[in-house]
Amino acid sequence: MNKFMQAALKEAQLAQEQGEVPVGAAVFQDGKLIAAAHNLTEQTGDPTAHAELLAIKAALAKLGAKNLMGCELFVTLEPCAMCTGAIHLCKLNRVYFGAYDAKSGACGGSVDLPVSGCFDYKTEVYGSIDEPQCEAILKEFFKDIRKGGKHGAKL
Amino acid sequence: MNKFMQAALKEAQLAQEQGEVPVGAAVFQDGKLIAAAHNLTEQTGDPTAHAELLAIKAALAKLGAKNLMGCELFVTLEPCAMCTGAIHLCKLNRVYFGAYDAKSGACGGSVDLPVSGCFDYKTEVYGSIDEPQCEAILKEFFKDIRKGGKHGAKL
Repeated sequence: MNKFMQAALKEAQLAQEQGEVPVGAAVFQDGKLIAAAHNLTEQTGDPTAHAELLAIKAALAKLGAKNLMGCELFVTLEPCAMCTGAIHLCKLNRVYFGAYDAKSGACGGSVDLPVSGCFDYKTEVYGSIDEPQCEAILKEFFKDIRKGGKHGAKL
Repeated sequence: MNKFMQAALKEAQLAQEQGEVPVGAAVFQDGKLIAAAHNLTEQTGDPTAHAELLAIKAALAKLGAKNLMGCELFVTLEPCAMCTGAIHLCKLNRVYFGAYDAKSGACGGSVDLPVSGCFDYKTEVYGSIDEPQCEAILKEFFKDIRKGGKHGAKL
């Protein structure tokens, strides 16, 4: 498995353990981990607390920079419209995501914002990176919810 | 002028005074102001610190709620992709914006995300509310920058 995506998947596993939808993200610069985060919407009660947005904000703070040019983001699930917008505003060089999200994905799954012309910065986006592993943790989580399992009460 | 948009415009004026791109936003519930904010990208060094996202987060915190159902957002400029995504994730009932943004607007100006099918919640969006006033403050700001005026050094 890609070692960078592995860092994002580790975050997704932490999310799962905390009853959060298991999505994780990690920002790298020159191969070095700058910041990592996972979905926190349940614990914070903030529906915008997505893994990507949290990882981006942490990376900006860590680097003390006004953008993330020269950085790469790895995320286990295709970014939504909000996160795809944030990725471009921060001028990330490249984004690699795992599972496609046919419902809410904004990088080709549902809509394809990077090619829509609404961004003035070109971030390269690559999907299906270690997709089986990234998808499996989400499937397991939602299967558990449907069964009324341990995460069922939270969502 | 619409009194709700006036609250958003007041925020845009505060932004202008602080050398920020003059965009303001305000969240209302049953006609009562819940939270207001303006663009803070320069001062925070965070390119995601848009007026809408800040107002939304402040409103969620103020209400102690997990979403903004029953609330309306007024913003002086058409929301970008990131903010349009956040608006839908928070389930705002309605959004009213002032000036269209042909370059980065995601509610019809550049792309039209609310009709794209990537959101599972329907937020009504209305543009061109008090557009002349909302547009004037932006034009004045950027005219000043082109002239190398007081805000020129900041951007």
